[in-house]
Amino acid sequence: MKHLLTKPEADLGFGNKTTQESPERFINKDGSFNIVRKGVQHYRLINIYSNLIAMSWFKFGIIVILYYTTVNLFFTFLYLLVGVHHLSGIEGNSFIDKFLDAFFFSAQTLTTVGYGRISPEGLPANIVASLEALLGVLVLAIATGVCYGRFAKPNARIAFSKNMIIAPYQDVTALEFKIANLRNNQLIDVEVILNYSYLETNKEGNRIRKYKTLELERSSVNFFPLSWTIVHPINEDSPLWEVSEGELAYLDAEFMILIKAVDDTFAQQVHVRSSYKFNEIIFNAKFNSIFDKVENGQIILELDRIDEFQKL
Amino acid sequence: MKHLLTKPEADLGFGNKTTQESPERFINKDGSFNIVRKGVQHYRLINIYSNLIAMSWFKFGIIVILYYTTVNLFFTFLYLLVGVHHLSGIEGNSFIDKFLDAFFFSAQTLTTVGYGRISPEGLPANIVASLEALLGVLVLAIATGVCYGRFAKPNARIAFSKNMIIAPYQDVTALEFKIANLRNNQLIDVEVILNYSYLETNKEGNRIRKYKTLELERSSVNFFPLSWTIVHPINEDSPLWEVSEGELAYLDAEFMILIKAVDDTFAQQVHVRSSYKFNEIIFNAKFNSIFDKVENGQIILELDRIDEFQKL
Amino acid sequence: MKHLLTKPEADLGFGNKTTQESPERFINKDGSFNIVRKGVQHYRLINIYSNLIAMSWFKFGIIVILYYTTVNLFFTFLYLLVGVHHLSGIEGNSFIDKFLDAFFFSAQTLTTVGYGRISPEGLPANIVASLEALLGVLVLAIATGVCYGRFAKPNARIAFSKNMIIAPYQDVTALEFKIANLRNNQLIDVEVILNYSYLETNKEGNRIRKYKTLELERSSVNFFPLSWTIVHPINEDSPLWEVSEGELAYLDAEFMILIKAVDDTFAQQVHVRSSYKFNEIIFNAKFNSIFDKVENGQIILELDRIDEFQKL
Amino acid sequence: MKHLLTKPEADLGFGNKTTQESPERFINKDGSFNIVRKGVQHYRLINIYSNLIAMSWFKFGIIVILYYTTVNLFFTFLYLLVGVHHLSGIEGNSFIDKFLDAFFFSAQTLTTVGYGRISPEGLPANIVASLEALLGVLVLAIATGVCYGRFAKPNARIAFSKNMIIAPYQDVTALEFKIANLRNNQLIDVEVILNYSYLETNKEGNRIRKYKTLELERSSVNFFPLSWTIVHPINEDSPLWEVSEGELAYLDAEFMILIKAVDDTFAQQVHVRSSYKFNEIIFNAKFNSIFDKVENGQIILELDRIDEFQKL
Repeated sequence: MKHLLTKPEADLGFGNKTTQESPERFINKDGSFNIVRKGVQHYRLINIYSNLIAMSWFKFGIIVILYYTTVNLFFTFLYLLVGVHHLSGIEGNSFIDKFLDAFFFSAQTLTTVGYGRISPEGLPANIVASLEALLGVLVLAIATGVCYGRFAKPNARIAFSKNMIIAPYQDVTALEFKIANLRNNQLIDVEVILNYSYLETNKEGNRIRKYKTLELERSSVNFFPLSWTIVHPINEDSPLWEVSEGELAYLDAEFMILIKAVDDTFAQQVHVRSSYKFNEIIFNAKFNSIFDKVENGQIILELDRIDEFQKL
Repeated sequence: MKHLLTKPEADLGFGNKTTQESPERFINKDGSFNIVRKGVQHYRLINIYSNLIAMSWFKFGIIVILYYTTVNLFFTFLYLLVGVHHLSGIEGNSFIDKFLDAFFFSAQTLTTVGYGRISPEGLPANIVASLEALLGVLVLAIATGVCYGRFAKPNARIAFSKNMIIAPYQDVTALEFKIANLRNNQLIDVEVILNYSYLETNKEGNRIRKYKTLELERSSVNFFPLSWTIVHPINEDSPLWEVSEGELAYLDAEFMILIKAVDDTFAQQVHVRSSYKFNEIIFNAKFNSIFDKVENGQIILELDRIDEFQKL
Repeated sequence: MKHLLTKPEADLGFGNKTTQESPERFINKDGSFNIVRKGVQHYRLINIYSNLIAMSWFKFGIIVILYYTTVNLFFTFLYLLVGVHHLSGIEGNSFIDKFLDAFFFSAQTLTTVGYGRISPEGLPANIVASLEALLGVLVLAIATGVCYGRFAKPNARIAFSKNMIIAPYQDVTALEFKIANLRNNQLIDVEVILNYSYLETNKEGNRIRKYKTLELERSSVNFFPLSWTIVHPINEDSPLWEVSEGELAYLDAEFMILIKAVDDTFAQQVHVRSSYKFNEIIFNAKFNSIFDKVENGQIILELDRIDEFQKL
Repeated sequence: MKHLLTKPEADLGFGNKTTQESPERFINKDGSFNIVRKGVQHYRLINIYSNLIAMSWFKFGIIVILYYTTVNLFFTFLYLLVGVHHLSGIEGNSFIDKFLDAFFFSAQTLTTVGYGRISPEGLPANIVASLEALLGVLVLAIATGVCYGRFAKPNARIAFSKNMIIAPYQDVTALEFKIANLRNNQLIDVEVILNYSYLETNKEGNRIRKYKTLELERSSVNFFPLSWTIVHPINEDSPLWEVSEGELAYLDAEFMILIKAVDDTFAQQVHVRSSYKFNEIIFNAKFNSIFDKVENGQIILELDRIDEFQKL
């Protein structure tokens, strides 16, 4: 069974027979997959917690303010329903005054600040207020979890060189790209997998998409303090052997990258994905080194120069 | 020692000699084991935290309300015991009024909302109230942990095709089933182990249960963005070689699945289990593809069609 | 270099040359090491957090009450220092009344319940009260972390059979012991390492302690739903080949066990250690099966029978 | 391709061609890298959360006090802006009295202690106060996460012997250093990688920095209860074969160490780095044993003697 000999650990999980029409790209530049899930109710696809964790702080702030206003309006409505005369300390006579006093009393209860100038009297108002206080306490518990999750989520920031390069390397030609850690957090045990996707013409003349994992000169390092140029030597075993710029375009080539590492600060595994399309590949160029200076006995790493290359 | 040659990493941990009577199935459809533990006090089997984490939000809400009411009743009883005249601000004269005021004062203390219209005076009431406030603070701490745990627990949702299929595959026959990720969270480094359990008739004519791990065409993938058809080729090395539908029933066959993966959002390992009994296997059929469309340059994955197959 | 050939992954980390005098045992029954660290200030050895996490709930409760009382006494002292006349609402005239009012005001501030019957007026009392409230908030944050840690810490409970057994097994003799999971939490990918420690007489006639890892018939399983008998076959390669009960005593034999597993609920790795001394080994016996019943289609596991064996 | 034969898992990630000028050392004694990142805005390099987690408790306390004061001043300013006459209960007439009352009212709101002697009246003050209470609740949530992170972060404390030693060992010479666990927490599955960095003179006569991984007699242990002497045997395969003290200085040798382990209490992976420069190597010496006593049946480990050696 010959197909048992392929290295399964190198498969990217797209199968070897997807659709014949080609999506624009499989992996977007930000690492997300160019895929839409259908046929399941939307809410089942979504994990509220992971959405709250993943959204921007601005959007999160909006949601918090909206929640705060809505819940306070809901309880204001309840206080008005049971009668604001059960809230001792309310002085206004107009509806708007009563409404505002009930609203801010609700806010004081929900945050458990409870000044007490206004306080509930009688069974109905007390029941509502004690339930609101309980809700406040529980929501604080949940908010704590979400805020902690937002802060503590693993978030490696790896810079990729804007282009891949195909150029002579030692005795052969090589496909190269460059990565650097944008954070001061140390990444440990960094591992890179590089996959090549292209359209193959089969016996029937149909063009179907194929996937190959490209062998790397070095696929993992223990530390990642500097930048790292990842090199696929294009020797006779490589599917890129003697490929030209035009052929890469015809093959609709896409190079997909998966990086796994351990964030040393939180001892968490992190994953970063990205991809290069054929039109992001430069032929006959060489990356510039971004760490060729030493100042005061320290190595200087110039991260803004990661995209720099020079034509040969 | 021949038995040292078996691959231990493939064992499912049931041993090779359980009972001769057969349980209905070993692994339930939801992935739990069909096993009852006895002979240990029930409380030792249970981890309160993991129960609070695993129960539904509805049940969790009931428990919170029950706890809130019970603790407030308990402290109400204490305030009545030391005398409600120590709670300044209580105005009612009837027992029911005093009881309610004490009850809601307790709620205000436990949630630390503390309006202050009613407040403790004198040593006994102050001691009770300060202990209740401390309890409130501690329980908030615990509630926070539990709510965080409920939200952040790893919970992969993998859809399994309703049936397994035995059908021609490439040059041989194969046993196949299909899985898809129901969540938008990415799963990374997905690994599948497929085990086959059946009743064997030994020399003495007794039928004893045996376990075999089935070799898979591909047992792991790096990414899992689309659906994945897991294939066990039924070649001459397979224990299913030339087995018929009737024989599978006679053997009381069960196929047990363990899936391991890493949830990319939380960088947590997740495990999913399931099983198929012999009567869930379809002969001579073929799964339909659920990702044969591209819209707006994006691959469309129709998750509601994962069970679909067609008879050959 | 012959010593490079030894399997390093099997070393227990005691080195191969400890002291000639023998400690009673290396690993205590509860899995802790029988070792005392000296020469470092005690506080450097201790991680406050892990102590707070590891202690019993009773001891933890005592510490919470002590902390609460001490901090309140400290702030009471501060309020008395700046003058209780700055706390508006205090009515008592005697020192003891003032002291108690200040004390309970402090408790109301620390828990942020803040009834307000007593409240600070003037700069000094307000500074103290606002710092106490800040402390209360921070300590709540810390308490939350500690309570969460206490609840969520990985805590596998594995039952070990009281004795090891040496008995005929298949074609050879084997050293066996039995383990079972005492919790309803599932353990996944369970791995066992069994090490043998004994006193060897070297050329000079000194008895020095040696360590050997014993090969197991099966050293890992994917699932661990039932009990598991761990078997070291005593064949010609085993250091226990033809050893007698008296010889084990003379060798001061200790069998040290390390179990690694993944707790499925929390996706956390857990470690359990234990050991058997020579006098806990039974010769010529056989463990009874603890899962030979099926009731209502479910396997019954009788955990209280894990120690049971019968003499052959 | 010969360079594919090198063991990639042993690379330290510095590449094999950094700068020709030499930094003082690559890894500082505390395990940080001697590297400065430039060319990215400073804030992108920094992860606020991991900074708050990593700083000392003293610095953290300062930041909390500063935050508390600043936020209170900001809200005081807002209350003054909308008019302190909207805060019922304020009695002072002078600006300073009003300012202080507003300031401490703000503190009572932010901590949700809310005594209520002063309380907001009217729309503007109520809006400000309800937003401040919301902020207080959210910041408490964040503080909880940070405090938990500070407490629960993995923090192995491993003592390294002050010097490396080159001395006869069994049949050969060996490079040795010693480590011990300074904490009572158990470390499991400890793995050591030792890398050697030096300046090589190439064909053109330039001195360029090279990296080699040194083979260890034993590179991992399951337990780490005692101290551990890590040994690199200097045989003919070692790059240190027959190197002299003067040559090590000329080569500007640095020995870089990466230790990986699992903290048993939290089931977290921890990493410790350190390095030795050539001038920290002692020739012809022998480490003293630090665990040669047994008291009351317990092994005694004298951690303050880890640096001790004797000249041969």
